[in-house]
Amino acid sequence: MPAKKNAFYAQSGGVTSVINASACGVIETARRHKQQIGKVFAGNNGIIGALQEELIDTSKESTKAIAALRHTPSGAFGSCRYKLKGIEENLAEYKRLVEVFKAHDIGYFFYNGGGDSQDTTNKVAEFSQQQGYPIQCIGIPKTVDNDLPITDNCPGFGSVAKYVAVSTREAAFDVASMCATSTKVFVLEVMGRHAGWIAAASALAAEKEGDAPHIILFPEIAFNRDKFLRKVDSCVKKYGYCVIVASEGAQTADGKFLSDAGSRDAFGHVQLGGVAPVLANMVKDALGYKYHWAVADYLQRAARHIASKTDV
Amino acid sequence: MPAKKNAFYAQSGGVTSVINASACGVIETARRHKQQIGKVFAGNNGIIGALQEELIDTSKESTKAIAALRHTPSGAFGSCRYKLKGIEENLAEYKRLVEVFKAHDIGYFFYNGGGDSQDTTNKVAEFSQQQGYPIQCIGIPKTVDNDLPITDNCPGFGSVAKYVAVSTREAAFDVASMCATSTKVFVLEVMGRHAGWIAAASALAAEKEGDAPHIILFPEIAFNRDKFLRKVDSCVKKYGYCVIVASEGAQTADGKFLSDAGSRDAFGHVQLGGVAPVLANMVKDALGYKYHWAVADYLQRAARHIASKTDV
Repeated sequence: MPAKKNAFYAQSGGVTSVINASACGVIETARRHKQQIGKVFAGNNGIIGALQEELIDTSKESTKAIAALRHTPSGAFGSCRYKLKGIEENLAEYKRLVEVFKAHDIGYFFYNGGGDSQDTTNKVAEFSQQQGYPIQCIGIPKTVDNDLPITDNCPGFGSVAKYVAVSTREAAFDVASMCATSTKVFVLEVMGRHAGWIAAASALAAEKEGDAPHIILFPEIAFNRDKFLRKVDSCVKKYGYCVIVASEGAQTADGKFLSDAGSRDAFGHVQLGGVAPVLANMVKDALGYKYHWAVADYLQRAARHIASKTDV
Repeated sequence: MPAKKNAFYAQSGGVTSVINASACGVIETARRHKQQIGKVFAGNNGIIGALQEELIDTSKESTKAIAALRHTPSGAFGSCRYKLKGIEENLAEYKRLVEVFKAHDIGYFFYNGGGDSQDTTNKVAEFSQQQGYPIQCIGIPKTVDNDLPITDNCPGFGSVAKYVAVSTREAAFDVASMCATSTKVFVLEVMGRHAGWIAAASALAAEKEGDAPHIILFPEIAFNRDKFLRKVDSCVKKYGYCVIVASEGAQTADGKFLSDAGSRDAFGHVQLGGVAPVLANMVKDALGYKYHWAVADYLQRAARHIASKTDV
């Protein structure tokens, strides 16, 4: 029987409100199988922690602290946006990884991230075998965008979906109750640079014809200014108000992001970010309706207080 | 014994996540005292409903529907931003009000709103007495800004405070976990055009030195660009990241709102709103840190899902 090996766990890419619940699952499960798995080390700031040999020994944490991970949004051990390229291009880094894993007697590698991370997990598995130090590599899916192949609902998405649906509904009630004399158009910007799942989830706020959201803008469907404005106008005339949920990645047919529409500050500097204010100004200029806009940004992917049961 | 009179209830100004709970309280209490109070009529879109004689007969609503008000954000009967001026200036409107109240046998007027509404309530009481049709007028406090005189915590404020504190904490965890390689500065814009209570509530997110929020910007304290940037820089150097919560009404010493800093779109039109993007761009230009920003807008005052026990 081979000697018991340790495990290495790392968080990767943008964090979510429930990625720590995955960490909790790995660590608690390993603790329940002490015959098979030794210590669980976590990478300080993700895979960078392995490359720089900054490993967090989770065995030093109390049962209570590990259990609390389940309720803590963000990445407790730190995450990073750091992509390992192909083995040929990045040979030194792959070698370094296996070296560090060897030094800490690591036989299991859990990588908690999106599509790129799953790919890296696979490459590390192949490379470690080539090096004669086979590591069991397990990718743990994570993304708020729900754009991972194979998975139907990726952990993280359900919670953002719930946040966006609830927020859309609550804010829409607000707008509806004042539209007779005040704000008539409300724009909520949500995450999703290339995938519209989060924006699509806002549709859960509607129960019947006429309920908000009245318009959802996806990165996958080219934005058409005239069509958009016509729809806004007809909604206001029909329902008294119009609620729009826009993916941050909403773009025109030529692939230009609406958020890069070239807003400039007083000094002529290009202003970054915010498809919501761009849309709101478009509505104001063309239709003159009083508007409000919100940008949920990190609030949506950190909202552990309203996480979904599909996740935790 | 005088004949039993009906009651009129109206919502006024910006709605909150709990103003319907006040409506619920009025209606349920009246129903429990049928010997003293007849029907409760609600104004369709607030006081405008009285002026235009659009009264909603709440006695037609089921016990269940009225109880559900307690859990429904926004103004269920519609609210409006419509201020009655002094009696001399607006004599016709005051007369109209008393006329409508007489026509519907209304002896009690409940006005659910902020400072101006409380003032109107008082004026209606005085005027109705002058007219020989004395109406018992009761102001029900409502504001998210917590800027009502006399009240310590106004219904509505506690819930926004909780939303902002929780959101700040959750988003700060997110930023902290990725700041080593990604976003280092996060700006959350909250409501409060002239009162900083909501922004101040974000401080509840901090438990110890170094916790977010690191900077809070108030309308009451003049914004100083150099001081602000120095503080941002020192926070990033000390803690690795910096979380800023800014009142929408943050302004410079000369009373100019930061959000009116003169951003212009590609066509040279002034862009409205958003102190958060203005601050974020300021940080980027002066310090070069990667940033994110969020504008909670209506989400904060509609967030019934996380309302405070001080309110409901």
